Amino acid sequence: MKKIAILGSTGSIGTQTLDIIEENPDRYQAAVLTCGNNIELLGKQIEKHRPSLAVVMNESDAASMRKKYPHTEVLFGMEGLMTAAAETDCDIVLNSLMGMLGLAPTYYAIKAGKDIALANKETLVAGGELIMDAVDDQKVRLLPVDSEHSAIFQALQGNEQKDINRIILTASGGPFRGYTIDQLEHVTSSQALKHPNWKMGAKITIDSATMMNKGLEVIEARWLFNIPPDTIEVTVHPQSIIHSMVEYVDHSIIAQLGVPDMRIPISYALSYPKRLDNPYESVDFTKTGTLTFETPDYNTFECLTLAYEAVREGGSYPVVLNAANEVLVQQFLEDRISFLDIQNTIKKVIEKHEPEYHLNLETILEIDRNVRGDLTL
Amino acid sequence: MKKIAILGSTGSIGTQTLDIIEENPDRYQAAVLTCGNNIELLGKQIEKHRPSLAVVMNESDAASMRKKYPHTEVLFGMEGLMTAAAETDCDIVLNSLMGMLGLAPTYYAIKAGKDIALANKETLVAGGELIMDAVDDQKVRLLPVDSEHSAIFQALQGNEQKDINRIILTASGGPFRGYTIDQLEHVTSSQALKHPNWKMGAKITIDSATMMNKGLEVIEARWLFNIPPDTIEVTVHPQSIIHSMVEYVDHSIIAQLGVPDMRIPISYALSYPKRLDNPYESVDFTKTGTLTFETPDYNTFECLTLAYEAVREGGSYPVVLNAANEVLVQQFLEDRISFLDIQNTIKKVIEKHEPEYHLNLETILEIDRNVRGDLTL
Repeated sequence: MKKIAILGSTGSIGTQTLDIIEENPDRYQAAVLTCGNNIELLGKQIEKHRPSLAVVMNESDAASMRKKYPHTEVLFGMEGLMTAAAETDCDIVLNSLMGMLGLAPTYYAIKAGKDIALANKETLVAGGELIMDAVDDQKVRLLPVDSEHSAIFQALQGNEQKDINRIILTASGGPFRGYTIDQLEHVTSSQALKHPNWKMGAKITIDSATMMNKGLEVIEARWLFNIPPDTIEVTVHPQSIIHSMVEYVDHSIIAQLGVPDMRIPISYALSYPKRLDNPYESVDFTKTGTLTFETPDYNTFECLTLAYEAVREGGSYPVVLNAANEVLVQQFLEDRISFLDIQNTIKKVIEKHEPEYHLNLETILEIDRNVRGDLTL
Repeated sequence: MKKIAILGSTGSIGTQTLDIIEENPDRYQAAVLTCGNNIELLGKQIEKHRPSLAVVMNESDAASMRKKYPHTEVLFGMEGLMTAAAETDCDIVLNSLMGMLGLAPTYYAIKAGKDIALANKETLVAGGELIMDAVDDQKVRLLPVDSEHSAIFQALQGNEQKDINRIILTASGGPFRGYTIDQLEHVTSSQALKHPNWKMGAKITIDSATMMNKGLEVIEARWLFNIPPDTIEVTVHPQSIIHSMVEYVDHSIIAQLGVPDMRIPISYALSYPKRLDNPYESVDFTKTGTLTFETPDYNTFECLTLAYEAVREGGSYPVVLNAANEVLVQQFLEDRISFLDIQNTIKKVIEKHEPEYHLNLETILEIDRNVRGDLTL
């Protein structure tokens, strides 16, 4: 029985993880559940899964949950989240927290010797060096949940990291693939929220539309697979069937394919190194018909270009890129800024940033706070 | 230094293997070379590689080669071939012999404890059970060289055979993809010899045109990967970029891709489990553009259907299928029969065959001889 702590259990990845746990009651147990404010859904999850610990954002919610679910310990706030990540009896921490909030819990879970199933990109975008050093020190497993990184990880099985020639990270291109700058000028948040292939949360869906999501994935892959950023190539593949590929020094490419269903990579992270039978859909190549590939439009979708620059420069640049992006996406979702304001503002913030290197957790969080402060003034 | 015995060194796979050996003089040595009648090319290969043993078909050729190349032992005929396969000081036997001739040398090489790099399909088509039992007994490696089987083998690395859901064997479809029976009626051998993607020998190129090549590969895969024939699915993929795929029980598919260049799978078989750097071409996805998939036309290309039936029935059926096909392809290449005569005649031969099961080498060779005898009368 594998005990799983799900950080962010009411989000898209969290609920899909609970589906998988329900389908495999003899293998998995949801030992810890955490959420922000979606108390109603968390309550249903507690009733069904009876975790030993639940964590919510606010003290008042915690108090009311304690009364309702006396068999579950209920904590709150950042301290509660740290307890959930690091101090509970669990075998693996699935981190599907949204944004920068995910970094510290990952770090402390690793320090506590827990294996991590990582769906929180920001952990590696902002804390790549810090986190990978901790993983090496503690000899824990850091298992990717993102479909692209899971694909790369699967393509690496039975192969050696030193033999990687390049990584081909596929991108759907999002809802605005092929758009010009002029066309992007007036796109709305509701247009941006319509992803052609994947059902995901709002933040990541906007990131897909700006292609920042792919940029963050480049940075994540750089750390997760310990390779130079320029060996990572982005290819737009609108069908989202090939989830990514690894080319080796012998020019043989290994790819992972599947229908766009996040339950497949989540399952793999939970069952690794095994694969478990599941009832999900197969790719039917006779129906799929055609897979296409295009070069991304780096001039129009500047977020991708900015992410490459940030990871090449290293140090605090990716922290700044990510912090600025989080704030600006939120402002765009609230219709306070335009779609192009996101990339234009990130560019300005990065240009004026004075970089720092070899960051510890405190410095990373401080730089992040400063960027957010500047942008929300 | 890995010593390699190349059975069939003057053919397409043999010469490409020698190219790889030349590119890696510190790793590989051509210890044994064998050919049929292409004495002139063999002479050049002996001069360049100075093998300890060479084998030719005829006694007279052997005598003249001995005079010319006093430093190389020269043997001839089937006995010479057996010595080359089983009794020489080599680490791996690359079997690229053409047709049924390849079975016995593979068998004796395995019995002698040699690892095999197998480019001779007929070995497993006719002798699947016998060969795989010998591989298990001797605990040698049987490494596929065919691009499709190499792809499957690569997709299996880091995974377990028991987790295979299905194998998706890709087929280019050959030069007559999309043709109707009426259109196939009058196609000539020179049309059939024009393969759209791969440069290969004449026999295998005709087999690609009839799709018998894919049928033989289904049978080969059934034995090599120990899976039921109906878990092997053929998909026509005219670009020959995805060389085959394995879908696992979790509906995750692992594929191997590359430009259509046989040196990539040959290299992998020689360097396995390592991968060696090479100067061959990469896939450029921005130029590749589109990958397509179609269901094969089983009604028109009956060879593929016949091969499935033969492997489902098992026993001596695949031996008969293969023997009849070898004779008929030769007759077609000599313009003695029509293209459709190949599949029509195989069908008749199979229909009247009385099957035998659990065959030993002698029975296989006898059944093969009988089929050939009947067809050449």
